Amino acid sequence: MEPSEAYPMKGGDGLHSYAKNSTFQGEIIDVAKEFINETIAEKLDIGALDSPKTFSIADLGCSVGPNTFTAVGNIVEAVKSKYQSQSPEFHVFFNDHISNDFNMLFASLPHDKQYYAAGVPGSFYGRIFPEASLHFVHSSSSLQWLSRVPKEVMIKNSSGWNKGRIHFTNSGDEVIRAYQAQHEKDMEKFLQARALEVVHGGLMVLIFAFKPNGAHPSQCLINLALDLVGSSLMDLVKKGIVDEEKVDSFNLPIFFMSPQEVEAAVERNGCFSIVRMEILLRRVQENNNGNGSFDHQLAANMRAGLEGIIRQNFGDNIIDELFDLYNKKMAEVFTPSMAESVKGLFVALERKS
Amino acid sequence: MEPSEAYPMKGGDGLHSYAKNSTFQGEIIDVAKEFINETIAEKLDIGALDSPKTFSIADLGCSVGPNTFTAVGNIVEAVKSKYQSQSPEFHVFFNDHISNDFNMLFASLPHDKQYYAAGVPGSFYGRIFPEASLHFVHSSSSLQWLSRVPKEVMIKNSSGWNKGRIHFTNSGDEVIRAYQAQHEKDMEKFLQARALEVVHGGLMVLIFAFKPNGAHPSQCLINLALDLVGSSLMDLVKKGIVDEEKVDSFNLPIFFMSPQEVEAAVERNGCFSIVRMEILLRRVQENNNGNGSFDHQLAANMRAGLEGIIRQNFGDNIIDELFDLYNKKMAEVFTPSMAESVKGLFVALERKS
Repeated sequence: MEPSEAYPMKGGDGLHSYAKNSTFQGEIIDVAKEFINETIAEKLDIGALDSPKTFSIADLGCSVGPNTFTAVGNIVEAVKSKYQSQSPEFHVFFNDHISNDFNMLFASLPHDKQYYAAGVPGSFYGRIFPEASLHFVHSSSSLQWLSRVPKEVMIKNSSGWNKGRIHFTNSGDEVIRAYQAQHEKDMEKFLQARALEVVHGGLMVLIFAFKPNGAHPSQCLINLALDLVGSSLMDLVKKGIVDEEKVDSFNLPIFFMSPQEVEAAVERNGCFSIVRMEILLRRVQENNNGNGSFDHQLAANMRAGLEGIIRQNFGDNIIDELFDLYNKKMAEVFTPSMAESVKGLFVALERKS
Repeated sequence: MEPSEAYPMKGGDGLHSYAKNSTFQGEIIDVAKEFINETIAEKLDIGALDSPKTFSIADLGCSVGPNTFTAVGNIVEAVKSKYQSQSPEFHVFFNDHISNDFNMLFASLPHDKQYYAAGVPGSFYGRIFPEASLHFVHSSSSLQWLSRVPKEVMIKNSSGWNKGRIHFTNSGDEVIRAYQAQHEKDMEKFLQARALEVVHGGLMVLIFAFKPNGAHPSQCLINLALDLVGSSLMDLVKKGIVDEEKVDSFNLPIFFMSPQEVEAAVERNGCFSIVRMEILLRRVQENNNGNGSFDHQLAANMRAGLEGIIRQNFGDNIIDELFDLYNKKMAEVFTPSMAESVKGLFVALERKS
């Protein structure tokens, strides 16, 4: 198996860290809570799970918290209230790439956690757990990361070459198709691995920003936000600060699925059934809670997620200038009314028996 | 439960790191290999374990490798050869304090490992795994660390006060008794937690430097090596570099058990039976393999283990001068012929049914 490319979120707890700039992901987890509760209440078949002594939960692509602790805490509470007095013990596995900041994750584990915690390093596009060892899998704001950039878009002067861009938001059809093919391969690897790891009757909840069915990639807000990173880089090319060839050869391995694309992947794999799919609407606060305007928050969020991969490819020196430019572009394009269009897709799957 | 005091081995892979200065611990693991093989071949009762799909192994106090990978690899091989074609999958849990360098541990996991790996942060003096979830527990060169310094030895002007020393090697009886009592409490906590976590019929192998039965602490080579750190600190007091009160109030939470003390602890706990106990003799290389003389190696080894706790208590500035002094003292006291007296104790226990 080819190793997956790894671009962890920005570690530590500094100004631009993921820990301090993942409020959107956190909001989505809060909104998902009631759906997780209902899914566990209605679909978790304790009998079919053979009443395990230990209930095992994995959070895939957990990054460094605090969101993962909130998500996992919600799941544990929901399972406890389902089992009532027969509640098992909980084993929670926090998974992310080997290069994730597990030291920080472990140091910030909640003191009142009601589970035994373990960290699991490795790409979720391969096997990372023993057979039939998980009862509940959760993954939030992670599955948009492909295992790699599709090869085709990096071949210079080919018809699929993604020249002058770092994402397919506004690219030609061949580039879009290459990304689509990579997504299909990756989802099959993801579902195949989980089909082996999750017990029959076990549940899996996947949450991610998505593209509406039938929409062109450029009609998707979050794709536009990615594209603006590309055009900010091109501005630095014009200024002579960044080498144009570097931008031509660099691409983000990110793909936001549509609900139909998820359904198709699950269908092709055949081992899971979708038991619930919901659109998660962000609860927009009337009072700005001191975290700055919408465009500013979203820009800071994107920076925490993308700084690592940009740094790897373009070096440390351009980061501040790039994201200053980016913030300005975001402020021009993203209006406060768009805050409501930041949505997530909630997909609950059951491992077929 | 009181949190345990945590003094991880020196992380990273620099000159004084544990990764580069743990050859003694590595040699002990190599020597233990045949005893582990035999214990698994003779004592592992697959039937009693209810033929698990997944065989779970924990290495407690794993530090950062490479020793833990060697130890775990040996166990996996031995279990595989016992199960033959019915070999299960392996889940290996690497445990150490929250402040251990798990990032480095994960980054150096062997590429050809034949198990699924997880990191488990937390003190092994408390529960860190779900009930009956482990088939094999291994712990090497870790159990000498007590959960804390006994309170009594830090009470100024009391009869048990360990003034001018940082260990009990050459202290009065009251200090020795206080350490002994702490060891008894800690071993009970350790065995109680493991009794719950290890399945009936499961095995536990503990390996550590030890004190001969009936010997005074000062007759134990490794205690002497600890005491020389104390006298090096006192030399810095005389030079006016270190505050005497600081040395008076500082103690190493380290206790090397005798075989009889292990037997007594296991007896008191009642949940395990000792199935094998062996003294591990170091295979002394005829050719010095480029790692320097015996005293130099041992001193470097001690530094990797103790630098963290010394730094926490005495600051960064004294470290190099302290260990330069220490190296000289070691060279005076430790002769090459003593190399053969660096021994380990191998204790294999079975969880009673």
